[in-house]
Amino acid sequence: MTTQQWFNEQHDYSGSSIGFRVTQRLHTEQTPFQSIEIWDSTDWGKLMVIDGCMMVTTRDNFFYHEMMAHPALFTHPRARRVVVIGGGDCGTLREVLKHDEVESAVQVEIDERVTRLAEQYFPELCESNNDPRAQLLFIDGIKWMAECEPETLDIVIVDSTDPIGPAQGLFNEAFYHSCLKALRHGGILVQQSESPLAHLPLLKDIRKAMKGAGFQALRTLTFPQPCYPTGWWSATLARKGVDLSDFRERGAEMKQFATQYYNAEIHKAALASPEFLRDALGD
Amino acid sequence: MTTQQWFNEQHDYSGSSIGFRVTQRLHTEQTPFQSIEIWDSTDWGKLMVIDGCMMVTTRDNFFYHEMMAHPALFTHPRARRVVVIGGGDCGTLREVLKHDEVESAVQVEIDERVTRLAEQYFPELCESNNDPRAQLLFIDGIKWMAECEPETLDIVIVDSTDPIGPAQGLFNEAFYHSCLKALRHGGILVQQSESPLAHLPLLKDIRKAMKGAGFQALRTLTFPQPCYPTGWWSATLARKGVDLSDFRERGAEMKQFATQYYNAEIHKAALASPEFLRDALGD
Repeated sequence: MTTQQWFNEQHDYSGSSIGFRVTQRLHTEQTPFQSIEIWDSTDWGKLMVIDGCMMVTTRDNFFYHEMMAHPALFTHPRARRVVVIGGGDCGTLREVLKHDEVESAVQVEIDERVTRLAEQYFPELCESNNDPRAQLLFIDGIKWMAECEPETLDIVIVDSTDPIGPAQGLFNEAFYHSCLKALRHGGILVQQSESPLAHLPLLKDIRKAMKGAGFQALRTLTFPQPCYPTGWWSATLARKGVDLSDFRERGAEMKQFATQYYNAEIHKAALASPEFLRDALGD
Repeated sequence: MTTQQWFNEQHDYSGSSIGFRVTQRLHTEQTPFQSIEIWDSTDWGKLMVIDGCMMVTTRDNFFYHEMMAHPALFTHPRARRVVVIGGGDCGTLREVLKHDEVESAVQVEIDERVTRLAEQYFPELCESNNDPRAQLLFIDGIKWMAECEPETLDIVIVDSTDPIGPAQGLFNEAFYHSCLKALRHGGILVQQSESPLAHLPLLKDIRKAMKGAGFQALRTLTFPQPCYPTGWWSATLARKGVDLSDFRERGAEMKQFATQYYNAEIHKAALASPEFLRDALGD
């Protein structure tokens, strides 16, 4: 490193910013969908930035990817067919494929360049891409979900960017209704649902749209995510026809694969609702 | 607001930064101990910055202050005498005094100017300063603790700045030994113990010093804190002569005062140890 340089993301909505000390920009391109930058940093490994927003760092992506996958997979009794909408960095797909019960995991990412750059700069996230159970599609997830054969999926994970730009259509009732239709009884929808502190109105909108689409049970889980605004993030689980009060705690305790954040205790912890959130969401 | 201006804290140790959109600097001064700035912000209320480090924002200080106070107070069967070392903004003191069982709460802050500025810019944090049970001292906490009458305290909360500058002496075995001596059997020491992700070596040092001083049981609790590096923070509890596996869960469920983050569920959640931390700390 010669001179100190910082990549800084100023987040207008929350009036807060998060930055990382970088050494060089390794790549930049404009795809048909968005701009993508890859940076190298002094302490956080590589950074992937889409439309100016930090998506992934090598060092801290484990929080998000594990929490998008394992709580749903350890809630469903046996998830055989899992779909990831978005998630082009392949980190969520990798976590899903750690579960032996999964027979098919499809990743539906609109922008192939995200995955190609992940393969190059975040190879560890892509290490399961050649798993025979994995299928990578580069098409519109909204359309794919609308045309999905009904009652064929066990888990749908919406691993999207913020609800502006190409991901906008992933945060509304019509899309959630497609998900509901495609899920089997007891199936689970997982949506990344932004910062519980900074995006509370958006979180409420997401939950309202999920209920409006016909999901009975909702739970919002919280977890740290240093590279996202406020450093605190959430995933909202919605279930078809079955409630969400329990998970396979014993299964999580005996899990046969390594994680960095997730375990059975952390699963329970993520379900705890802070006072202000309990008041706001009625959880 | 005329032009956009950001207060940005670049944190060398972690190679990450956190910032807030500000409107104006309301105050700046150099005290005999440190520099203090007060800013007004667009979304986070007032900010207090000490030696360039964000200490408190109006909007998010509740995480830290509640988690420094309530887990210890709902673990001790009946804490009558509580001491806060540092904590000049008075937010921790306010949380302590929400507990009716507390008969005396002493705040020992070395820099009186922190408290005077908190009274002016964060009056809500100081609303219990005139409680007859409260005593505010502006002297050296290390010296005070070394001279404290043995076996007279139930809880000592070390609500300090980072272990550089005036707070350095609050993070070592000699100081923790003074705390141990001053605590009654079953008494609890609480130390803010930095980011579990970014400051893991420091967290280990703190725990080693606590054990070295003679504390038997340790537990590190984690919680969100957006204005501190990585947005994820910890407090380490150390207990004299008694273990730390239980807390008064029923008491926390029935608490007779309002909080924004803390509740019984959150207390349990904060005790959950992520995989990487369990490996690192053996918790």
